[in-house]
Amino acid sequence: MTRDQKAPVCVLGTGLIGGSLLRAAVAAGYPAFGYNRSQSGVAAARADGFDVDDDLPGVLGRAAADDALIVIAVPMPAVDHILASVATFAPDCVLTDVVSVKAPVAAAVHEHGLAARYVGGHPMAGTSESGWAATDPELFRGAVWAVGVDPGTHADPWRRVAALALDCGSVVVPVVAEEHDRAVARISHLPHVLAEALAIAGAGGGALALGLAAGSFRDGTRVAGTAPELVRAICEPNADALLAVLEETLIVLGAARDTLAEDGSLADLTRAGHDARNDYETARRWEITDVRPGDHDWLERLREAGQRGGVITAID
Amino acid sequence: MTRDQKAPVCVLGTGLIGGSLLRAAVAAGYPAFGYNRSQSGVAAARADGFDVDDDLPGVLGRAAADDALIVIAVPMPAVDHILASVATFAPDCVLTDVVSVKAPVAAAVHEHGLAARYVGGHPMAGTSESGWAATDPELFRGAVWAVGVDPGTHADPWRRVAALALDCGSVVVPVVAEEHDRAVARISHLPHVLAEALAIAGAGGGALALGLAAGSFRDGTRVAGTAPELVRAICEPNADALLAVLEETLIVLGAARDTLAEDGSLADLTRAGHDARNDYETARRWEITDVRPGDHDWLERLREAGQRGGVITAID
Repeated sequence: MTRDQKAPVCVLGTGLIGGSLLRAAVAAGYPAFGYNRSQSGVAAARADGFDVDDDLPGVLGRAAADDALIVIAVPMPAVDHILASVATFAPDCVLTDVVSVKAPVAAAVHEHGLAARYVGGHPMAGTSESGWAATDPELFRGAVWAVGVDPGTHADPWRRVAALALDCGSVVVPVVAEEHDRAVARISHLPHVLAEALAIAGAGGGALALGLAAGSFRDGTRVAGTAPELVRAICEPNADALLAVLEETLIVLGAARDTLAEDGSLADLTRAGHDARNDYETARRWEITDVRPGDHDWLERLREAGQRGGVITAID
Repeated sequence: MTRDQKAPVCVLGTGLIGGSLLRAAVAAGYPAFGYNRSQSGVAAARADGFDVDDDLPGVLGRAAADDALIVIAVPMPAVDHILASVATFAPDCVLTDVVSVKAPVAAAVHEHGLAARYVGGHPMAGTSESGWAATDPELFRGAVWAVGVDPGTHADPWRRVAALALDCGSVVVPVVAEEHDRAVARISHLPHVLAEALAIAGAGGGALALGLAAGSFRDGTRVAGTAPELVRAICEPNADALLAVLEETLIVLGAARDTLAEDGSLADLTRAGHDARNDYETARRWEITDVRPGDHDWLERLREAGQRGGVITAID
C-alpha cells in the first residue's frame, strides 16, 4: 500500500450513522464496505452502489483479510452480539464504534478480549430520521467527533480512527469514556428527555394548543420525533449519568416553580439560562497542536486539552 | 374612504413584533404609523422610511382623528401606561394588541374603560432577536394569529382586527382569553422554561460538554438566547397557567427519573413523547366557513371551532 492509498474501512450497521459513515468514507477515498442485518437495508445500500452484505461472518472475514478498520455502528443493545462475531472472525483488526455511550461499549470490548486494538468514537451528528434512506455523506462535515483517550489506548489504532473522523470532515475531541458519557448526558440525552416532556405538555392542550404552537415548541420537541426504541437505545445505557443531570434539572425547575409561585418571578432562571446559552454561543474551539499520539503522556495531555475545549484538526 | 382604501393602523411600540407589524401593514397597503418610546428605535424606523414618532399624545391624537386601528405592541409591564394614554387621547378608536397573554391585557383594558372597542390579538411568531433591527414584514406570513372571541366582543372591530391579521399573511384562530393563556403556557412559555433549564445543565458540563453539543442541544436551548427581561415579560404575567403545566411536567419528568432509576427504562416517556410529537406533526388546520361575525351566537361558535383546530383564512 502506498502512502496515498487508504486502508479499508468496514462498517457494521448501515443505518443513519453507519450508512452516512460508509458514504463519507467512500467519498474520502477509502475502500469501504459494510454489513447490515436487514435485507431491506442491504438492498437500499446496494441500489445506491455501496458494497453492503448481510453475511456477518463473511464481511468480517474480508475485514480480517484486508486489515480493515472495523466500525461498530449498531445501537448499544446489539453491540454485544456484534463483538462476539468480531472476536471470532476478525480479532486482530483495529476496532472503533460510533455508539452514543462509551463506557458500556468499552466494558463490552474488554469482556470480548478486544481492548488492545480498540479506540472508542462518537460523531456528534444525527437527525431524527433513521435508516439508509436518511444517510448523508456530508452528515459529519463540521461536526465534532469524540475519540477515546482512555488509559491503555495505543497510538497506531488511535491515529487510524482519528484520521477517519478528520477525513469525514469532522474535528476530533479527545475524551475518556466516563467524561464523554457525563457530557453527552447533559447535551444529548437530557435534550431528548426534555423534548419528550415538552411534547406531552403541548399535546395535553389539544388541538387549540397544537394549532397555536410555533417555533419554540417545534424546535423544543424536534427530537421527540425520533423513534422511541432509538431514544431508549441512546439514553438507557447511560442511565447513571442521565439520572444525575436529570436530578439537577428537576431541582432547577422546582426552584423556578417556587419563585414563580411565591414571587411571580423567573428572574433567577432566566438570568442563569441566558448566561448558560451565551456560554454555549461564545464557546470557541481551539486547536491542539503540541501533542502527537505516542508522545510521552500523550493520552493524559490530550484528555486535559479536550476538557478545555481543544480539538484536533489534522494528524500526521 | 372607498371600498379599496384601507383604514389606517397605528402601532404603539415598534420592537420586533410591533415593528414587523408596521412593515407588514404598509406592505399590505394600509396607511400605517407608529409610536416608539426610545429615540434610537424611532431613528432606526425612520431611517428605513417608516412614519414613527416618540410623541405618544401626538401619535394618539392622529389615530383619533384618522379613526385608526390602534395596536398595542409593548411588553405586558408597559401596557397599563399605554392604555392610560389611549383612554385620554384616543378613547373611541378600535383597539387590539399583540401581547403574549390575553386575560391580563383584557383586565387592564376593562379597567381603563376601553373594553367596548377592544379585540385581543396574539400573532404566534417571533425570534430570539428583538428591536427594530430584527423586524421583518414577512414575520407573520403563514403564522397563526389568535384573535379574541370573548363574550361582549363586537363584530365590527373584530372584522377589522381579523382583516389586519389576514392581510399580514396569517390565519386567524378564534379563542377566548383564558383558553389562549392556558394554551400558550404549554406551547410557548413552558418551552422557554425548559430551554433555560437545558442551557444551565449543558453549561454545567463546562467546555467539554458545550464543545460536544450538537443539534439537539442547539435547538432545545435556542429560545434561552432571548433577553431575560423579555422572557420574564412574556411568562410572568401568565404565572398561573404556566405553574399548572410546569407542575404537570415536573410529574412527568419525576416519573421518568423513577423508571430510569428503578428499571433502567424510559419506555413510558419515549412512547408518550413520540405520540405527542406525532399529534403535533399530523395536526391539520381546517377552515371555518360557516360562521360570520355578527351571526347569531357567532362568538361561541367561533370559540368552539377554534378549540377543534379551526382557522379563518378569509373575511368578507
